[in-house]
Amino acid sequence: MANVELKVPGMSCGHCEAAVKDALGALGGIAKVDVDLTTKIVDVDFDGNKVALAAIKEAIEEEGYDIE
Amino acid sequence: MANVELKVPGMSCGHCEAAVKDALGALGGIAKVDVDLTTKIVDVDFDGNKVALAAIKEAIEEEGYDIE
Repeated sequence: MANVELKVPGMSCGHCEAAVKDALGALGGIAKVDVDLTTKIVDVDFDGNKVALAAIKEAIEEEGYDIE
Repeated sequence: MANVELKVPGMSCGHCEAAVKDALGALGGIAKVDVDLTTKIVDVDFDGNKVALAAIKEAIEEEGYDIE
């Protein structure tokens, strides 16, 4: 299982958290997503054989967020 | 047509704007809703014979926001 922490400064509220979680949950191979709205960190556990880091980043960006 | 401007400080992003607009749109008698995320003002044109101000406030509060 791989892990990545991504800084997504544009997340401001529970709706943002839900949007990011939903977008990642729709990908295959995601085991766990934690969002910290204070630090703006998205913490993702994923199966690197099933989903690429690039796809994770793309899913977040498609929700309208920049990754720092 | 009646108008009210409500201060909703908890609105932070486009998702919040959409949540408030959708909640008000679901009421009958709402003619127009403008949301300004900078000033946190929700500006509502409504037919006072069809929807009460109390119902407008309640719909916003049910989305999880306090009205100042």
